[in-house]
Amino acid sequence: MTNSFYPPIRTLMGPGPSDVSPRVLEALSRPTIGHLDPAFIEMMDEVKELLQFAFQTENSLTLPVSAPGSAGMETVFANLLEAGDKVVTCQNGVFGGRMKENVERYGATAIMVEDEWGTPVDPDKVEQALKENPDAKVLGFVHAETSTGVRSDAEALCALASKYEVISIVDTVTSLAGIEVDVDGWGIDAAYSGTQKCLSCVPGLSPVSFSSRAADIVRNRKHRVQSWFLDLNLVMGYWGTDAKRSYHHTAPVNSLYALHEALVILKEEGLDQSWARHALNHQAFAAGIEQLGLSFIVAENYRLPQLNAVTIPEGIDEAAVRNQLLENYNLEIGAGLGSLAGKVWRIGLMGFASNRKNVLFCLSSLANVLTEMGANVDGQAANLAALDTYKRS
Amino acid sequence: MTNSFYPPIRTLMGPGPSDVSPRVLEALSRPTIGHLDPAFIEMMDEVKELLQFAFQTENSLTLPVSAPGSAGMETVFANLLEAGDKVVTCQNGVFGGRMKENVERYGATAIMVEDEWGTPVDPDKVEQALKENPDAKVLGFVHAETSTGVRSDAEALCALASKYEVISIVDTVTSLAGIEVDVDGWGIDAAYSGTQKCLSCVPGLSPVSFSSRAADIVRNRKHRVQSWFLDLNLVMGYWGTDAKRSYHHTAPVNSLYALHEALVILKEEGLDQSWARHALNHQAFAAGIEQLGLSFIVAENYRLPQLNAVTIPEGIDEAAVRNQLLENYNLEIGAGLGSLAGKVWRIGLMGFASNRKNVLFCLSSLANVLTEMGANVDGQAANLAALDTYKRS
Repeated sequence: MTNSFYPPIRTLMGPGPSDVSPRVLEALSRPTIGHLDPAFIEMMDEVKELLQFAFQTENSLTLPVSAPGSAGMETVFANLLEAGDKVVTCQNGVFGGRMKENVERYGATAIMVEDEWGTPVDPDKVEQALKENPDAKVLGFVHAETSTGVRSDAEALCALASKYEVISIVDTVTSLAGIEVDVDGWGIDAAYSGTQKCLSCVPGLSPVSFSSRAADIVRNRKHRVQSWFLDLNLVMGYWGTDAKRSYHHTAPVNSLYALHEALVILKEEGLDQSWARHALNHQAFAAGIEQLGLSFIVAENYRLPQLNAVTIPEGIDEAAVRNQLLENYNLEIGAGLGSLAGKVWRIGLMGFASNRKNVLFCLSSLANVLTEMGANVDGQAANLAALDTYKRS
Repeated sequence: MTNSFYPPIRTLMGPGPSDVSPRVLEALSRPTIGHLDPAFIEMMDEVKELLQFAFQTENSLTLPVSAPGSAGMETVFANLLEAGDKVVTCQNGVFGGRMKENVERYGATAIMVEDEWGTPVDPDKVEQALKENPDAKVLGFVHAETSTGVRSDAEALCALASKYEVISIVDTVTSLAGIEVDVDGWGIDAAYSGTQKCLSCVPGLSPVSFSSRAADIVRNRKHRVQSWFLDLNLVMGYWGTDAKRSYHHTAPVNSLYALHEALVILKEEGLDQSWARHALNHQAFAAGIEQLGLSFIVAENYRLPQLNAVTIPEGIDEAAVRNQLLENYNLEIGAGLGSLAGKVWRIGLMGFASNRKNVLFCLSSLANVLTEMGANVDGQAANLAALDTYKRS
């Protein structure tokens, strides 16, 4: 007979999922009600408003897709692209590559703008590509590359989209709530995100937001979206602004309780405060990491505070370190992904997990493990360097 | 400022979601761990084994899709169909119609076999269609029509699929765990289900199972699946049998804890016992319903014990009854769907909600509301009729 599963209690400092607040876990376990229950419909309206707050937008087409972040990405591409469209697609990591995959699966052509992994998308190259492709319909890029820890200048890139009259699609999976995302201010046409990063909610939902211009494209498609499940023209009937909601699919009721609670927590804290907290914990962590003699692969100006891609000391077996941290400290940090596999650790300080305790615990634990493996590092000095940053803040 | 959301405590006797066991809600709220954590991978293996148990199959391609039932339906059609395929598609309710929608969106042709709503799929008509279409690739039908409460003879229909050498796709969303589903015994090639019906888990996941023949079709497609998220050739890398799991999307970790627990509960009870419980509670409920002078739209032999489509007394405002039940009794029953809208109530006795307390409570509450609306019904007599059924069992 199979027994109930009791997970180990981990500290989640990988690329996501991040530690989930006890408040969110408790909300998740509240009794299930019907997906057309008037009380639930009211909560859905609040979720939409709270997402508008998080994305800084008044877009009425703002809702959580009932599936993980990669389905949110696909929702955006599936609904905005038609076969034959041209998409200027920026790749500086794994998730730009996934954009390309989406573009091509939907029968569109990806005009690639490639930048080295660990560097931001270069606006000059993007402008060049837009100039050379006056028939492009879309500019797609990743705001916060989870595979490298780099931030691209979404504001500048969206300004180029506007100048060359293309629709902007922006991956905000890892940026939302961790660094500034200003959908209306920057003129983002379509953004998608995930719940398991800086929102510190459980994985499984994907918030999306479409400008009215993008929503019009969805409404006036030449061919309907191949996917019934992701077709926003149908999803809108359930999440729409009409008083009467029509059944499309059965919403993941409890996961939406959790997202509601995570967004209430974000609103209580405030966006500015959340960004400032992520920035401060990153600075403290960085001071400690540098004290340990490790370095970041991303230049300081473009580093994501919530996702730290850190180099591995010579001669150290990076996987063994991660295993030790997991087994002996219940601490999860992330491996490198794609071309950075084996070359970096990805250490997340996302949402609820972005706190002083985690910063100090991770520095000490990492130093302990490295010391046991023969490296000459000083965990206490790393802790003191981090604390000094907090004191000076 | 938006407040935390505390849902009302309902009794869920609609077409799903059904009442969720406190054990499942508690499992849902256990601390999140990483989707590549070794402890999580081990749990995933158990979920697969438990789903094999529930579906009565040894199919190695058996897993929960990370999205609701309608995405599970789409996963099956998206992976098995290519443009130009012919699908004999049976429609005797809303969900057969959704199959047609899927078939057509994926560029295939639906050869429709239509039966009246409330009656089962007619095997003679299906055989005729298969004879007339020797180039058909697939037979698709709904085992348990949630819109009408009818059971079709899946065993007989799968035998026809085998005889005419087509792949069988079977919608088991509402049947799984409520009535017999025997994937291997009946030779089902692809089945999909939902978690929020007779498994009494939270909504948001969709168990699917593919025979080795169906899995081969997925592996040897001429054109890749348009959807990246639903492409099983990629999903298998994460859920696959290899010791090394590769990242595809971030799994809905906590929802999978809940599904694991729901399946452990099912295994503890046993499949036979679960089916017998659903049957008995239905019989008791039916005795009470008939005592109230109401009737079923489905003939006794084809009724689903877990989904009771019940007629509405003359002159009664069916929506007002549902509202009263919700407001004054916190009891949710379902409205009619599609062509049965306004003509029936759909009363679920699914999974954890299939119990004596719910049977008696629903009969009493319904009788109270009908009495207040001027109908001449006797709730106590209905209760006693139900109790008599339990006594004689």
